[in-house]
Amino acid sequence: MLENYLHSKGEEALYLGQQFSRSFIEKNIAPEDVISIHKTSIEELIKDMPADVSVSFDFLIEMMIHYGLALKEHQSLIRKQE
Amino acid sequence: MLENYLHSKGEEALYLGQQFSRSFIEKNIAPEDVISIHKTSIEELIKDMPADVSVSFDFLIEMMIHYGLALKEHQSLIRKQE
Repeated sequence: MLENYLHSKGEEALYLGQQFSRSFIEKNIAPEDVISIHKTSIEELIKDMPADVSVSFDFLIEMMIHYGLALKEHQSLIRKQE
Repeated sequence: MLENYLHSKGEEALYLGQQFSRSFIEKNIAPEDVISIHKTSIEELIKDMPADVSVSFDFLIEMMIHYGLALKEHQSLIRKQE
């Protein structure tokens, strides 16, 4: 899907990404995992990727872990209310 | 801070990033904004960045928008309970 987007750079692939993120949230996939999957995909797709960019993704993953935790808290709150 | 991390690749800078993300969440900064800031920083820092990598960040930003929305919902739930 990311490959499709990089090739087309189109709105359509972007829309697919949005749909995907919705199903990720429903499946309780953490935002840091999304970045991690993204990192792996981009490393496979782009052969001349500067090492610093890969490293920068690790930084982003760390930052997202707290967002993931905040979200998890939210999901358990919702379960309590149900 | 990201520059520091790229240079040192150290645990310390990673720890700073974690602290940062906590203050981002407290200030209601959305995860898609974190990626956006990250994209701008990395483009400034890495001169030989492949265009596809920049484009891939836009894709990631779109994905994070839904995580941001889920988080916002969480924060308004908490405010209601207070």
